Amino acid sequence: MKTNQSETPFNDIRDLFDKFPEIDQASVEKVQARDATLTKPPGSLGRLEEIAQWLAGWQANYPPKVDRPITVVFAGNHGVVAQGVAAYPAEVTAQMVANFQSGGAAVNQICETFGAGLKVFELALDMPTKDITQEPAMDEESCAATIAYGMEAIADQPDLLCIGEMGIGNTTIAAALCYGLYGGQAADWVGPGTGVDDAGLARKIDAVERAVELHKAHLDDPLELLKRLGGREIAAMMGAIIAARISNIPVLLDGYIATAAAAIIHRISPSGLDHCLAAHCSAEPAHATLLEKLDKEPLLNLRLRLGEGSGASLAIGIIQASANLHNGMATFDQAGVSNKDS
Amino acid sequence: MKTNQSETPFNDIRDLFDKFPEIDQASVEKVQARDATLTKPPGSLGRLEEIAQWLAGWQANYPPKVDRPITVVFAGNHGVVAQGVAAYPAEVTAQMVANFQSGGAAVNQICETFGAGLKVFELALDMPTKDITQEPAMDEESCAATIAYGMEAIADQPDLLCIGEMGIGNTTIAAALCYGLYGGQAADWVGPGTGVDDAGLARKIDAVERAVELHKAHLDDPLELLKRLGGREIAAMMGAIIAARISNIPVLLDGYIATAAAAIIHRISPSGLDHCLAAHCSAEPAHATLLEKLDKEPLLNLRLRLGEGSGASLAIGIIQASANLHNGMATFDQAGVSNKDS
Repeated sequence: MKTNQSETPFNDIRDLFDKFPEIDQASVEKVQARDATLTKPPGSLGRLEEIAQWLAGWQANYPPKVDRPITVVFAGNHGVVAQGVAAYPAEVTAQMVANFQSGGAAVNQICETFGAGLKVFELALDMPTKDITQEPAMDEESCAATIAYGMEAIADQPDLLCIGEMGIGNTTIAAALCYGLYGGQAADWVGPGTGVDDAGLARKIDAVERAVELHKAHLDDPLELLKRLGGREIAAMMGAIIAARISNIPVLLDGYIATAAAAIIHRISPSGLDHCLAAHCSAEPAHATLLEKLDKEPLLNLRLRLGEGSGASLAIGIIQASANLHNGMATFDQAGVSNKDS
Repeated sequence: MKTNQSETPFNDIRDLFDKFPEIDQASVEKVQARDATLTKPPGSLGRLEEIAQWLAGWQANYPPKVDRPITVVFAGNHGVVAQGVAAYPAEVTAQMVANFQSGGAAVNQICETFGAGLKVFELALDMPTKDITQEPAMDEESCAATIAYGMEAIADQPDLLCIGEMGIGNTTIAAALCYGLYGGQAADWVGPGTGVDDAGLARKIDAVERAVELHKAHLDDPLELLKRLGGREIAAMMGAIIAARISNIPVLLDGYIATAAAAIIHRISPSGLDHCLAAHCSAEPAHATLLEKLDKEPLLNLRLRLGEGSGASLAIGIIQASANLHNGMATFDQAGVSNKDS
């Protein structure tokens, strides 16, 4: 991956992977030590106990906390919509950005429910990426610049980051990326998205096949694959996940498209997503397959298929509960409760 | 079920089933009508959309709301612990009640996370039910009185009721009830509970077999089964679920033991649990089997196995989000977003 040592935009991105910290074992051990004293049978809080360890370990701090959770939504437009792959017109991307900003979208309500912040990043919506069935989505410079822009997601120093997106046509982009990364059949990676009909689904599969065929000589390098298959919100989400890792911020991944961004990191560095949890399994059929490739067990499975960070934001409550349980429960000694061995 | 029309305590309970309202279709239709106008692809919020319908329909009111959620924990003690079926001593039940009251238990932290109230009902802890391997757990009068006492769970008029329990030995009771209701092998219904070892597990299976064998001539009547196999917290949870149904309060069921209480209602009236959602699937292995018998798909599956209403309370956040999404999202018209067909 690093044979070319010249200062190219992508090499600057590759260099960031060398700065990835591993989980802070000291914080994990502090969680384990206190957990063993809390008034419950060992292990009886299941994944909530594991989440407390994950949270403290990747925050590299003790106690674990969820005081400043934030959801970031990256919005992009896609030239591939010219292939008739989307159920809604492309102008809906900008309209939904306005809806996020005025508080009317689903993700606004979910963030408010759990007291999370919400930030929206528009990515040159009036200048869609190129049609991937015809040419590369982006050039290297603009792809790297978008990854770098995505790193701004952590500017407010959240203690938990939820990654989401909005972009008419971007389930087609995610499918192309996954087909490029993992092979199989194009149809394995294509689903109805926001709700295309059978003819639209056939056009999506065809577009994904043609795009990957066109770029197939260049897909071995994950960043080249991203540049050629797009899109900007995926590049930006990748940047956000990278920045969170470097800055000790645990991440909740949203649905299929956010997870496709994560998959590019995973291909570059298989341990590069250890600071991320899959918040939910989308109803978009390929998401379950993709989560298996990444060895991620989703926290929720409620048949959401909206994107915009909705599933990731919905899981914030579970992470908050995990932190509160760990920090707030009484110990056997404090409560005067007889332990198992006493 | 109602052949005996004399005024016995159990006949008073049976009469309540005639007062069960069905779901309020007018409220369901109001949810459906507004849902179709909200700025999202139809169906893209998956189960959250179904939950908004369920909530309004069983509240028999529109809009759906979760302003006063409450968790009730019923605590009981069990003579069957004499058979060596529990990992903790029986005095832990009372100690944990004190822990709930002073705010140190897991359920306290989860309720605080989601702004839910918590009420604890002690059920004659110093007078355990009889050992079900030797005799009936309760007599009819005290069983019916405990069901009636459980109805007090709704005294504060919550708009969402979470049902939980605490009782050393009560996974053995739940297993006996399920084995009595559904048959199969006793081992199908017995699990490690709070963490018995292999020898303890063998004693649990043996106790469940002997108890059901002892009472087998009397298990056709679900209330007789409850009276004979116990326990008080199960009778009280049954009362709480019944009272919620009559008072238009939707219910979140907790784990294996709470669901066993629900199963008794289900046997009396198969539609009697339509106002209840299974909040989670417990790590106690038989819970998944029991949920299948009741045709309930759990909202969460996080390997919890604590009881005390922890899983039900954890799901409150999902119900809150469902209500907020339905009530707070903008419509396509309000937001100026192009709809699919426009």
